[in-house]
Amino acid sequence: MARELAGKREIKQERAGRTRVLIARAAAEVFAEYGFAGASVTKITERAGLTLGALYFHFENKEALAREIVRGQPERVTPARESQGLQRAVDISLTWAHQLLEDPYLLAGARLVMEQDSFADPDGNSHQQWTTVFAESLTEAQRLREVRASIDVENVARLIVHACTGAQMQTYLENGRQDLPLRVGEMWSVLLPAIGTPSALRRIRVDDPREVMA
Amino acid sequence: MARELAGKREIKQERAGRTRVLIARAAAEVFAEYGFAGASVTKITERAGLTLGALYFHFENKEALAREIVRGQPERVTPARESQGLQRAVDISLTWAHQLLEDPYLLAGARLVMEQDSFADPDGNSHQQWTTVFAESLTEAQRLREVRASIDVENVARLIVHACTGAQMQTYLENGRQDLPLRVGEMWSVLLPAIGTPSALRRIRVDDPREVMA
Repeated sequence: MARELAGKREIKQERAGRTRVLIARAAAEVFAEYGFAGASVTKITERAGLTLGALYFHFENKEALAREIVRGQPERVTPARESQGLQRAVDISLTWAHQLLEDPYLLAGARLVMEQDSFADPDGNSHQQWTTVFAESLTEAQRLREVRASIDVENVARLIVHACTGAQMQTYLENGRQDLPLRVGEMWSVLLPAIGTPSALRRIRVDDPREVMA
Repeated sequence: MARELAGKREIKQERAGRTRVLIARAAAEVFAEYGFAGASVTKITERAGLTLGALYFHFENKEALAREIVRGQPERVTPARESQGLQRAVDISLTWAHQLLEDPYLLAGARLVMEQDSFADPDGNSHQQWTTVFAESLTEAQRLREVRASIDVENVARLIVHACTGAQMQTYLENGRQDLPLRVGEMWSVLLPAIGTPSALRRIRVDDPREVMA
């Protein structure tokens, strides 16, 4: 009897989990299309084919949905190939640039970055979040002597995030972001000689990281 | 008689010119405060203390006003000190970062950069416009052997513009852009060693360019 109840509870939790994912996915599509200001919980529930009640069971409001989508960006960007240190930083940025073209969550994030004053945590906007991701890889790179000891990795991490943000905005205007991978590659062609040690520079590949490295 | 008429025409033109400036200034304030979507020609004429007729005499619509304000950004950013080449590029970026804190035209530009899909010329968005400004200084710098011959100046110019755009957005969220000059200085501390010749690096100053150089 207790086992049966536990089983039912699991099924219920699984269903709730699926509903939550459906809502988040619909919200991502609506934010990507209309922006934060233009989105509404009604548009989102209509897209998800669910009731307002279901949405409010999982999310307090539109702001909470936007925060969750922005917070989830880095974990969606997972380069196909194994890498570490400096190569990891390059791979993350290029995976993001390629994947952005078709992933509704990343498209939503790219759009929401411009409206964060409407919903972001005061102590955790998307710029900070991404800076942490790149600073982590660059710190490892410095430990592995791929990045010169004199380099301030926080500073470089911020520059990468700012440059990717600007590139994303310009390519959105000009060609629906088709040129974003190219621009991110060009950024690295300037940054790598500035921060990398000679032996790292011979090794680092600035190519499509969705291909597994040969 | 002809002279009198010509004199009257000049006075009329002068007055029209002043009205145009009043409208553009009011539009800048309204765009800075409400963004492009939130601004209206009515809000702008109310701010200017003028009629809708006066506005439409000078500007076709809200889009034309936004385009004019964005187009006028570079000429508002004039470093106090004379400089050329690489120092000029540094000075322009830092003058922009400092001046943005109090200039309604630059504040409007910073806000409008995120909504350019609503009004920008297809062949002239603000990123391209600023890239041209920096590419010009960097090309001069390369001719003066301040920037290494192997450097692609267009590429670096784009990176500067993208990084400044991202820094502007992040500092806006975090501290009303007070940290923007600091961030732009940090960007140069990464970029200068990457692009500058040794003799140029000894000479370039990354400081407040509103102070005349000693």
